[in-house]
Amino acid sequence: MFDPQAVLDQLTRDEKVRLLCGADAWHLHGIERLNIPEVTLTDGPHGVRLSDSQALDGSARPATVFPVEAAMAATWNPDLIEQAAAAMGDECQSMGVSVLLGPGLNGKRTPLGGRNFEYFSEDPFLTGAMATAFVRGLQSRGVGACIKHFAGNEQETRRFLINAEIDERTLQELYVEPFAKAIREARPWTVMGAYNAVNGVHACQSPDLLHRILRDQLQFDGLVMSDWVAVKDKVSAHANGLDLEMPGPGLRDQELIAALDSGLMTEVALNERALNVLKLIQRCVEERRDAHPDWDRHHELAVRVATESMVLLKNDNSLLPLSTEESVGVIGEFAHLPRFQGGGSSHMTPRHLVDAFTAVGERTTVQWATGYTGTEVTEEELGEAVALAEIVDKVVLLTGTTDSMESEGFDRADMKLAPDHLQLIEAVARANPNLVVVVHSGSAVETRQFEAHTPAMIQAWLPGEGGGEALARVLFGEVSPSGKLSETFPVRLEHNPTYETFPGSKDTVHYSEGLFTGYRYYDTKTLPVQYPFGHGLSYTRFELSDLTYDAEQRHARVRVTNVGDREGAEVVQLYVHDEASTYRRPEHELKACAKVTLAPGEQREVTLTLDEHAFAYYVPHLGRWAVESGEFELRVGVSSRDIRLTHRIEVESDTEVRILPTLNDTVQDWLADDRTADILQPIFERMKFEQDHPMYGIALGFPIPQLLQFIPHMGYSEAEAEKVKADLEEAWQKLNPDGMEVQIPQG
Amino acid sequence: MFDPQAVLDQLTRDEKVRLLCGADAWHLHGIERLNIPEVTLTDGPHGVRLSDSQALDGSARPATVFPVEAAMAATWNPDLIEQAAAAMGDECQSMGVSVLLGPGLNGKRTPLGGRNFEYFSEDPFLTGAMATAFVRGLQSRGVGACIKHFAGNEQETRRFLINAEIDERTLQELYVEPFAKAIREARPWTVMGAYNAVNGVHACQSPDLLHRILRDQLQFDGLVMSDWVAVKDKVSAHANGLDLEMPGPGLRDQELIAALDSGLMTEVALNERALNVLKLIQRCVEERRDAHPDWDRHHELAVRVATESMVLLKNDNSLLPLSTEESVGVIGEFAHLPRFQGGGSSHMTPRHLVDAFTAVGERTTVQWATGYTGTEVTEEELGEAVALAEIVDKVVLLTGTTDSMESEGFDRADMKLAPDHLQLIEAVARANPNLVVVVHSGSAVETRQFEAHTPAMIQAWLPGEGGGEALARVLFGEVSPSGKLSETFPVRLEHNPTYETFPGSKDTVHYSEGLFTGYRYYDTKTLPVQYPFGHGLSYTRFELSDLTYDAEQRHARVRVTNVGDREGAEVVQLYVHDEASTYRRPEHELKACAKVTLAPGEQREVTLTLDEHAFAYYVPHLGRWAVESGEFELRVGVSSRDIRLTHRIEVESDTEVRILPTLNDTVQDWLADDRTADILQPIFERMKFEQDHPMYGIALGFPIPQLLQFIPHMGYSEAEAEKVKADLEEAWQKLNPDGMEVQIPQG
Repeated sequence: MFDPQAVLDQLTRDEKVRLLCGADAWHLHGIERLNIPEVTLTDGPHGVRLSDSQALDGSARPATVFPVEAAMAATWNPDLIEQAAAAMGDECQSMGVSVLLGPGLNGKRTPLGGRNFEYFSEDPFLTGAMATAFVRGLQSRGVGACIKHFAGNEQETRRFLINAEIDERTLQELYVEPFAKAIREARPWTVMGAYNAVNGVHACQSPDLLHRILRDQLQFDGLVMSDWVAVKDKVSAHANGLDLEMPGPGLRDQELIAALDSGLMTEVALNERALNVLKLIQRCVEERRDAHPDWDRHHELAVRVATESMVLLKNDNSLLPLSTEESVGVIGEFAHLPRFQGGGSSHMTPRHLVDAFTAVGERTTVQWATGYTGTEVTEEELGEAVALAEIVDKVVLLTGTTDSMESEGFDRADMKLAPDHLQLIEAVARANPNLVVVVHSGSAVETRQFEAHTPAMIQAWLPGEGGGEALARVLFGEVSPSGKLSETFPVRLEHNPTYETFPGSKDTVHYSEGLFTGYRYYDTKTLPVQYPFGHGLSYTRFELSDLTYDAEQRHARVRVTNVGDREGAEVVQLYVHDEASTYRRPEHELKACAKVTLAPGEQREVTLTLDEHAFAYYVPHLGRWAVESGEFELRVGVSSRDIRLTHRIEVESDTEVRILPTLNDTVQDWLADDRTADILQPIFERMKFEQDHPMYGIALGFPIPQLLQFIPHMGYSEAEAEKVKADLEEAWQKLNPDGMEVQIPQG
Repeated sequence: MFDPQAVLDQLTRDEKVRLLCGADAWHLHGIERLNIPEVTLTDGPHGVRLSDSQALDGSARPATVFPVEAAMAATWNPDLIEQAAAAMGDECQSMGVSVLLGPGLNGKRTPLGGRNFEYFSEDPFLTGAMATAFVRGLQSRGVGACIKHFAGNEQETRRFLINAEIDERTLQELYVEPFAKAIREARPWTVMGAYNAVNGVHACQSPDLLHRILRDQLQFDGLVMSDWVAVKDKVSAHANGLDLEMPGPGLRDQELIAALDSGLMTEVALNERALNVLKLIQRCVEERRDAHPDWDRHHELAVRVATESMVLLKNDNSLLPLSTEESVGVIGEFAHLPRFQGGGSSHMTPRHLVDAFTAVGERTTVQWATGYTGTEVTEEELGEAVALAEIVDKVVLLTGTTDSMESEGFDRADMKLAPDHLQLIEAVARANPNLVVVVHSGSAVETRQFEAHTPAMIQAWLPGEGGGEALARVLFGEVSPSGKLSETFPVRLEHNPTYETFPGSKDTVHYSEGLFTGYRYYDTKTLPVQYPFGHGLSYTRFELSDLTYDAEQRHARVRVTNVGDREGAEVVQLYVHDEASTYRRPEHELKACAKVTLAPGEQREVTLTLDEHAFAYYVPHLGRWAVESGEFELRVGVSSRDIRLTHRIEVESDTEVRILPTLNDTVQDWLADDRTADILQPIFERMKFEQDHPMYGIALGFPIPQLLQFIPHMGYSEAEAEKVKADLEEAWQKLNPDGMEVQIPQG
């Protein structure tokens, strides 16, 4: 079509500058004189939200609304998400959209994150796997993905102003890793910079994020755009790696031109940025296709994703599935006005919205009571709900967070259901103990307030346009539930590792929990949780057996058997536990998973392939991921707390992670390292330090110089002190012939 | 005697330099030609550890060994500790010691801290109260105290090398506060700088710690000495506020002289340091007295402190007290070789050591089995112990940490008793369920492993030379136990807030738990604990009633009634809960306490006086402690988890802690502050943002500039946008006539 470099060569400086900002809310600038067209970007990530209006809140054209990302991740089925994203791609093409703004890859430090519903998981491996599938599916249809928001955008509170202080290892292992995986495995066309600052620099103008990490480390070769109105300092942004400011019209082109004049911004940088924009436009043009979406198939796909996302949290006495012979009372406004998507930029107009009341009604006799309006329950609503509960066989009560409780733009105030909803649940349960509670929320809620009177519970997320149908299929056992929690449900908000620090103070939030988020925290601290990461029941039962490991191929194999009497799907999860490491690691980390569907009695050997990061962690002093030799335990199970099989292995690595103790390190350091222990032990013993020596503990803690400095106070002669010092120096020089610098004070 | 300034004026520069380092391990330099004598310092803080040898491990002269500081704090009885310290002062005078190196005031981030036994409490108020009493008592006898280790020395691991990263508010509220209180209320003669670095600078050469905080903020006017061999860079240390390097002989005087020549160190600074040394010497000389310690009375005092420190953790079915009619089996090496003090610099030679076996034997028929040797239990020892348990009425089993598990110099590996000890307890309990377990340790241990088979449990700490006698008095009910935990006993180490970060990585430890240590953490996070802070049972029962508060006097009054049938002492604890604050605060904080002894049926009104910090916290942006107006709850109880009475009060403060939102802050900030809400609300409403607007959440999060920038995308006219902007600016100018700078981007 056109050669970006050739086009660039024909552009004036002003034209290049113009390219670095959108033409309006949803378009890039074209260049008429060179026949370069405007291309369209629009909001995702749960479907296509295309508005014909420049107003950001303009109503969108109807399109298939898929379940939110949190729900997608709960399917633990990347293949299915790839199909869903491909369907979105077709819809984009049919509407002339070239780039869909998604998926969101941010982390979940806290269940309160207002936008958690738009992000996949608390676990970076699961997030990365889902993101990869999403990007692949979308881009397979010639539509660019935009992985976002890079990086550290884990809260809505003061998101434009907040500075996320994140140590390098945490940044890499938790927050960069999903981007790394998606870039490595699916090559997204674009990345979106976040609103917030990271370690003092706004994400859209951070050379650390955009140059060092995104370009150099992750080798990203696509386009970097800003989140909408995220650019604070336009010159700094473009000088430090941002290609495209959004939205337009840009009114700051003159600032950039002045910076070019003054040398604050170089022509080289300008050319790089403009070329990236042209390359994107070229890609968009080249990949344009005729598409005629099969809307019915897309709706069915949305139903299927929703079905697989629903997590059966509990099912006492096999209350579920419902039988079509039973009368069912459906309670809750959400059953008529589905709570199917979140507020903000992902808010769509569905093509075919199915409510739960209708879907259940297609299967059995059903009556409905509204139960509540928004967060409130009137006396009348309560009375009606109870009256209904009294006359039906079973009750399905839909609750969850309302739009006013959870949305883009603000963080949740707590993890609780509305007090009136809790009251409703209790009253209904008293009237009819055969109660199924269905929770619609984009993130974990506290369930302890209604656990006692709720025998069955389904986490149904914000399930997209087909949520009602999906729920009915699960309730009536047409499909056995197979969703697994993509985030831990803690007993209470206070137990969350960020409870004391979230959402930060004024303009700074410290990620002081470090690597210990989600199950990495709860499992390391052995805290009780309400429902663990990876948890989800089925109507059938599975057994895992015969765990083996092929180190050569990095393949773990495990046999899964459906020992129940229904078809169902299980998610086999492999966690890696590191027995010992130089830097502290969480108790275990998810490193592989596989979903397998089995008929009753069927069994299958599942292969879990571990990738190059399976045993590695980010070693700060090496500035990269590395594997440290030693023992590891492979833990295979069906949640982070339900490990069924373990397998101990020895991993050999070429990388030496341990730092050789120097003469400035302590006696304890020397004795703890097999490379130096043999040198110090005899000298230390000659100094008559034995374990029952009253100064033993103190001597252990001495750095070598202090040990020597103390010798005169230990009753040794100066000659002996000199001898010890000389012996140590000699031994250490042998060990470290390159001669690392050491200092031994005189005296 | 002599005038320090006059002496200083007569000194040569070299003589002044010489004064800045000790003469040897335990003496300051004198100046012979001016008749300035050498004065003696020696180790504390649990008694006088005076060695005639220069060797730091030289055996010490016998002196009264008091319980360790952790035990002292568990008495919650500052008057008693003042008496004990006065006794130490007398002993110092009798041995020619002018400064006793103590008390230790460091915090307890983790139960693993190897030197926790030498520190008072996890709570800075209790630590400060105990420190004040200790300093007062000691100095009342003309012996200087040395409060230590300033600051951030909360671990032994790599203590010479570690850099403690502590945010300013945490440093002030938890780690500086005890020093502040002791200095304010008891004016200690000296302060000791710590081994470690704080926020990148070694404590003994930190102008931030020594100038800004110690001298300027706390108005400390005594002498600052280094911990032994803590000085890394002598020039930097003295230039930045250290008066005295210890120990001597100093071999780096030439370095300081060179620095004076080159101007790195000024003569003014040299004179200040030398004058501080001379002032201390002058004080020591002036306060020298003849003293003839009443050793018997001191021993009895040590017994009394130990008695009041013992915490009756549990006492199911009133197993305790023992009767002299019963036969008792005493099990454990510690009953013969008492575990009465810790290892390291506080390790003393007792004058009169009483073991538990002897003391119990003075009261009833007693047999002993060794049970274990160190951490190990042989088959034979186990058999003997079980055999003994089978034939006696009741068993008292002494366990705890051995010297190899807990000592100065290294941190504990875990909180567990030795595995063999656990096995012993279980076997003994099976043989005789009437089991009293006595724990000798300097810090909390995990008890959950033996809770089930231990009906009665006493935390007996490291109780000094009279520990055996004290234990017998408590066991036989001669005194009702009245010790209260000065630190939380968590269910397990993993629950501790520092579990993930302690003891740091290589040379840095981040105090990332911030203010949330001890009960501040457990209570804020509503975690279950094994035994809460402040907990301790009695043989009698107390009721609290009639809580009143006099705001004028800051006096809370509460009636305490002994409703049991024995004399006993209760500790009334007052915690303050702040209903709302600009900066996050812990759930509640101890701000007053009082110990009251009552006869059966007796009642007394106790007055708890709140000090100026009772409602205040350290406000980072003001750089000082301040009270924020609002509602507070006074919580009065007998542990942090056993609050019996509450009283809601309104506190008015002149200080405005809240920061006025600016035009760069968010809509949410403006709406949340009553000073700006009224301005924005009507404008925001005119912009048609109501709660069900799909962009409501997003708009809430906008800083005002982004809100204005978004207006063109919201369907409003440019004129309307201009009007909104003008209205906001006008309103804000009125509010903030001083004209804080604001930036509104164009576009």
